[in-house]
Amino acid sequence: MIALPLTDVAAPCCSPLVREPLSADDAEQLAQTMKALADPTRLRLLSIVAASDGAEACVCDLIEPVGLSQPTVSHHLRVLMDAGFLTRSKRGTWAYYALVPGALDRVSQLLAA
Amino acid sequence: MIALPLTDVAAPCCSPLVREPLSADDAEQLAQTMKALADPTRLRLLSIVAASDGAEACVCDLIEPVGLSQPTVSHHLRVLMDAGFLTRSKRGTWAYYALVPGALDRVSQLLAA
Repeated sequence: MIALPLTDVAAPCCSPLVREPLSADDAEQLAQTMKALADPTRLRLLSIVAASDGAEACVCDLIEPVGLSQPTVSHHLRVLMDAGFLTRSKRGTWAYYALVPGALDRVSQLLAA
Repeated sequence: MIALPLTDVAAPCCSPLVREPLSADDAEQLAQTMKALADPTRLRLLSIVAASDGAEACVCDLIEPVGLSQPTVSHHLRVLMDAGFLTRSKRGTWAYYALVPGALDRVSQLLAA
């Protein structure tokens, strides 16, 4: 992993938001996480990685499906890493992106009743 | 409800995004929904309404907790209505905002494994 997560979805945050009002700090943190997910290209990239074998995908397999340039795709992948959803490892020529286990589930649980 | 929902979270959308890659259309729709949630004030307002008795709150009880002007709070409530998370009804002097049953759960399920 290159960058430290700006918002660490792995950190204990808060109760589901329907249980008790979110504090200002928790709302700020959750909004940052939501911003990472509030983009159609990032949702597609995350979904492609998550649905791949072993929840990992080569960057070489991520560019064509979303139909954008390699620098644009890399930017979006970086945002997803900074938000704590993906990690990156280099093997040979290519970078591989893997879903952080539990990261999406934690967001899911915050929104659930 | 004043406005028709721009993104209807009640509409059948897609499988959980870890199961299969999201289509471009589904990703666009889900990103719009996420944008409504990607703001700390909106998350707090939604949380206050959801955690209130009967998942409903008077706008008169929403302004002080978030510490913003009434027009700003009304703007954020409108975004949450347009995204299909809240409905609004007028009773006497005040407007009341209610959580749309199942709306947050549907988003939660799309993010879950």
